[in-house]
Amino acid sequence: MKEWEKMLNLLSQIQTPEDIKNLDISQLPQLAKEIRRFLIKSVAQTGGHLSSNLGIVEITIALHYIFNSPTDKIVWDVGHQAYVHKMLTGRLKDFKTLRQLDGISGFPKTAESVHDIANVGHSSTSISTALGLAVARDLQKENNQVIAVIGDGALTGGMAFEALNNAGKDNTNVIVILNDNEMSISQNVGGMYKYLTRLRSAKQYERVKEDVTNVLYQVPFVGVPLLQTAKRTKEGVKSFFINNTIFEEMGFTYLGPIDGHNIEEVISILENAKQLKGPILIHIKTLKGKGYKFAEQNPSKFHGVTPFNYKTGEPLVQKDAQTFSSEFGEVMCNIAENNQNIIAITAAMSEGTGLSKFEKKFPSRFFDVGIAEAHAVTFASGMALGGYTPVVAVYSSFLQRAYDQILHDVGLQNLKVIFAIDRAGLVGEDGETHQGIFDIAYLSHIPNICLLCPKIPEEIGNAMQFALKQNGPVAIRYPRGKGEVAQNLISDYNSITPIEHFKGRQVVIVATGKSVLWALKIKEYLQKKYNMNIGIVEVACIKPLDVDTLFNFVKRYKQLVTIEDHVLVGGFGTIVANSLHEVGYSKLIQHFGYKDGVIEHGKIDELLEKQGLLPHQIGEAIKARVDGK
Amino acid sequence: MKEWEKMLNLLSQIQTPEDIKNLDISQLPQLAKEIRRFLIKSVAQTGGHLSSNLGIVEITIALHYIFNSPTDKIVWDVGHQAYVHKMLTGRLKDFKTLRQLDGISGFPKTAESVHDIANVGHSSTSISTALGLAVARDLQKENNQVIAVIGDGALTGGMAFEALNNAGKDNTNVIVILNDNEMSISQNVGGMYKYLTRLRSAKQYERVKEDVTNVLYQVPFVGVPLLQTAKRTKEGVKSFFINNTIFEEMGFTYLGPIDGHNIEEVISILENAKQLKGPILIHIKTLKGKGYKFAEQNPSKFHGVTPFNYKTGEPLVQKDAQTFSSEFGEVMCNIAENNQNIIAITAAMSEGTGLSKFEKKFPSRFFDVGIAEAHAVTFASGMALGGYTPVVAVYSSFLQRAYDQILHDVGLQNLKVIFAIDRAGLVGEDGETHQGIFDIAYLSHIPNICLLCPKIPEEIGNAMQFALKQNGPVAIRYPRGKGEVAQNLISDYNSITPIEHFKGRQVVIVATGKSVLWALKIKEYLQKKYNMNIGIVEVACIKPLDVDTLFNFVKRYKQLVTIEDHVLVGGFGTIVANSLHEVGYSKLIQHFGYKDGVIEHGKIDELLEKQGLLPHQIGEAIKARVDGK
Repeated sequence: MKEWEKMLNLLSQIQTPEDIKNLDISQLPQLAKEIRRFLIKSVAQTGGHLSSNLGIVEITIALHYIFNSPTDKIVWDVGHQAYVHKMLTGRLKDFKTLRQLDGISGFPKTAESVHDIANVGHSSTSISTALGLAVARDLQKENNQVIAVIGDGALTGGMAFEALNNAGKDNTNVIVILNDNEMSISQNVGGMYKYLTRLRSAKQYERVKEDVTNVLYQVPFVGVPLLQTAKRTKEGVKSFFINNTIFEEMGFTYLGPIDGHNIEEVISILENAKQLKGPILIHIKTLKGKGYKFAEQNPSKFHGVTPFNYKTGEPLVQKDAQTFSSEFGEVMCNIAENNQNIIAITAAMSEGTGLSKFEKKFPSRFFDVGIAEAHAVTFASGMALGGYTPVVAVYSSFLQRAYDQILHDVGLQNLKVIFAIDRAGLVGEDGETHQGIFDIAYLSHIPNICLLCPKIPEEIGNAMQFALKQNGPVAIRYPRGKGEVAQNLISDYNSITPIEHFKGRQVVIVATGKSVLWALKIKEYLQKKYNMNIGIVEVACIKPLDVDTLFNFVKRYKQLVTIEDHVLVGGFGTIVANSLHEVGYSKLIQHFGYKDGVIEHGKIDELLEKQGLLPHQIGEAIKARVDGK
Repeated sequence: MKEWEKMLNLLSQIQTPEDIKNLDISQLPQLAKEIRRFLIKSVAQTGGHLSSNLGIVEITIALHYIFNSPTDKIVWDVGHQAYVHKMLTGRLKDFKTLRQLDGISGFPKTAESVHDIANVGHSSTSISTALGLAVARDLQKENNQVIAVIGDGALTGGMAFEALNNAGKDNTNVIVILNDNEMSISQNVGGMYKYLTRLRSAKQYERVKEDVTNVLYQVPFVGVPLLQTAKRTKEGVKSFFINNTIFEEMGFTYLGPIDGHNIEEVISILENAKQLKGPILIHIKTLKGKGYKFAEQNPSKFHGVTPFNYKTGEPLVQKDAQTFSSEFGEVMCNIAENNQNIIAITAAMSEGTGLSKFEKKFPSRFFDVGIAEAHAVTFASGMALGGYTPVVAVYSSFLQRAYDQILHDVGLQNLKVIFAIDRAGLVGEDGETHQGIFDIAYLSHIPNICLLCPKIPEEIGNAMQFALKQNGPVAIRYPRGKGEVAQNLISDYNSITPIEHFKGRQVVIVATGKSVLWALKIKEYLQKKYNMNIGIVEVACIKPLDVDTLFNFVKRYKQLVTIEDHVLVGGFGTIVANSLHEVGYSKLIQHFGYKDGVIEHGKIDELLEKQGLLPHQIGEAIKARVDGK
């Protein structure tokens, strides 16, 4: 046990939430302190989400102090802020395995603990899930509490509004804790943000209201009747004199705002809420990164981090200078210099997608719509109708939220909207909810879309130039992180015909994007080990697919293999196979990609190994088929 | 020209919106009257959307009276209420072709008129599109107006909220007209609905506010300072004394509510709005079905109608007694009698999906969440986590809105949620935005999902029983309308292995759902014309696919054909082909389904003919391949 772990006197005693209840309320600030200490040092070693967890320490302690998990159900929105919850529900000792293969997940997982109510990773779902649980409880005539914990960023997602709207109607007991740290992953945007800012300073209204009421009572003849008139109105004096909150308008009882780092205040409001009926929203102000100066100063930097030196806040391994994202950001800046039509749109992923520089350089042509992917895409369709060329930069798994908008508002209308799809393919440690392994499947049937897959960052510029020459939608999918070595095989995207990088004998690999680099390694492996000479054909444009050229390249081989960083169902391999069969190719094709199912968290290479997709594994599988096995 | 058409003195003069401006304001009520007369008689002949158009007559006239379309851009939400707009923008004479192949669409279409700004058919997109157009205008330093017209039903869709949130921030000039007819397709639901009801009766607040202000001014010593204090608060007296509306909280200027059938009042408020800056929301109350007593009495019945007798309001052709939807409704009621765990959830499609009877019989287990498909699915996941078996009944093309929720909240969690996917396949007259031809493609890669396709209504009960025995998600897709004759080939769904309905020689057709019935006709055609004996295999369960059984059925045939009521890309045929090839099937497969692209409105048989998919067309294509062509 390390020195600092010994200092966790209180925290180390907490095996279950029951143990928290045995602490005196005066001990809880000390517990919070220990949790922060542990959080910082632990995440410094493993990497993970830090700022959001530092901000929610007191709220989490108070939740477990007041409520009885898992009978009372705490539903975390997004879920990356559930570390403290995990620590307090028996998983403290597991934090050294955080986000590692077979270790604990960085998100709630029902398989990990009965205290994790739902698996989650995407934003704005918690109120819907909580409402479902609450209604189920009512039907079962149980009386446990259901609590959704949602950040102000997640509240900009339309689905949260749909859920608030329904909760307000259903009038069931459900508690929504609005963890208001004044930002989502990047900064918060929109009317709701401005509104919350006002609410936070609403105390003065309350005071003035009391003054007015007192004064009116003293006005002869008129005052009292007037107050009575006010009382007769449907909402009574209260709504007459002060602003109702949006939440009250929707049917919620609104409590707050309170200081989320004052644990007694949080406990007191939760106790209060527990006694009330119907939907309740508790507005709690917190500071993202609270208690760690580097994170307080730069909460975005410490939103998701790689291992770092906790004394300096500096990452142990410097970030790769050039990633797909950074290259995309550079390309966007370069294009925008000469092309006034280029617009950048993102959904709370400005930094992650590499657009920070663009944002600074071209503020009037940059739009961060908040966590609102659906709006981002239809907003882009409006800009395209208005004569601009919007580039929507969103991660692959989050763009799933805008599937219908891509189809209905962009595809069917054949509008020139460019999708820069970052984090396509396996993302690794964030796990199942973040793997970007479905985009070829959900995009390839979109009418009019062109689908490109650059394999190295250097090709993003070429792909973008190609996209700009099109008259309809183009999606460019590329993986997380830096590019691998591509032996100078840079595609220029002057045309989108398949490219035969290497002629070989007997076996040809057809690959796209990142998997072309896997093909190079497989070729090398089979060359070295079995003296086989493998052909490699790159298909950079999956749709439209120039199948005649592809057919000409592959027809002389005895065996054809496809490889992709994507699920097999509806993926690249099936598109290649079906297209080739349509033009008369009749040989059997061997497909490599992700099996149908859930791919958990872990290092990408570990996940690939489990799928049998490391170069030597694929190599051996190819060899086995060559040998007729 | 018919008698009643002669009575359209004013309407027949309107060739462009400019012509409306030449009318005197006093003539507009007469124009409205003529439009209603035309609407009722015209839709009585062609069928189409009636209630929503009757409700928006005055608003549409006023919009074209005040604004200059197409310089000023009117964006219609959903779009089924744009008939009046079409009449006033040069398409009056085309209404006899409404919703017919090569005729005018029932929705806005940019290809039809410069006055149609965006193609649309799904709900809640208008504010996003309008905001995109407005921001584009600002960048171009133009100063035209952009107006989104959205119903209160569409406002329950989360995307509308995302757009309001962003409009409030961007502070650009955009006008949102809230056409508040107190219902969406079925009835309106949720906190927002209750809220709008309150707003509609808000006049009393205004009055009392004035009283209070007047009184305070008269209070010696205290009154004036107090008012000054109030004025110093950020929002001033106004927000201090009366409720701000939600829209004002979000950054909009709120105007209204006004009577949407008082044309002078509507014109006056639009003129007012035109002078204002920033985002403006105009709250206009209308009556769905206004001016046609049968539609006023039962607006839902006249939402979308088949041709009817305008004197009686009765449909010319009685609705088919049994449709897939009605059978689903019956099945749900029967199951719910004995299974207390069954929950029905829909998104403003209670009648359309056949759930009206269930709603009445089991009100505590029925949930209409409003136009909020995303919430519907995640809410269902919450209920599944709470121990219930929710059945989510939504049309195929609208379920696209919940793709990420199906994947993230149901599929990855492997929750027992049943999706009853109505209107799967071609829907016909509603056209491109409503064709349910993508669901196999967007569902088949969802982890853990089971995908069933009953071919006739009688099988829905069996499919549901099978679904109830599963432990994970099941999607059941079935088409619009009544079932065709299936020669007593009812599948019992006791197992989900493929069924060989007919053994044949040389050619076997593999089909699923409705396309099995097409296969029967093709078989008959080829039998009669060429004396060919075609085998037919039904695959009722697309996923998981029992490929070994399928392989055994098809291996002895020389030719294999797949048919589907779905796009070819990512569809049934590709799944069958890839699965068979995986187990060593090496013959070429002929696929029939919809080509990649947009399928417009028209009768289903007309659309099939254009795609070359009528039984005799497919029959000839099969024969051609048999003959080696």
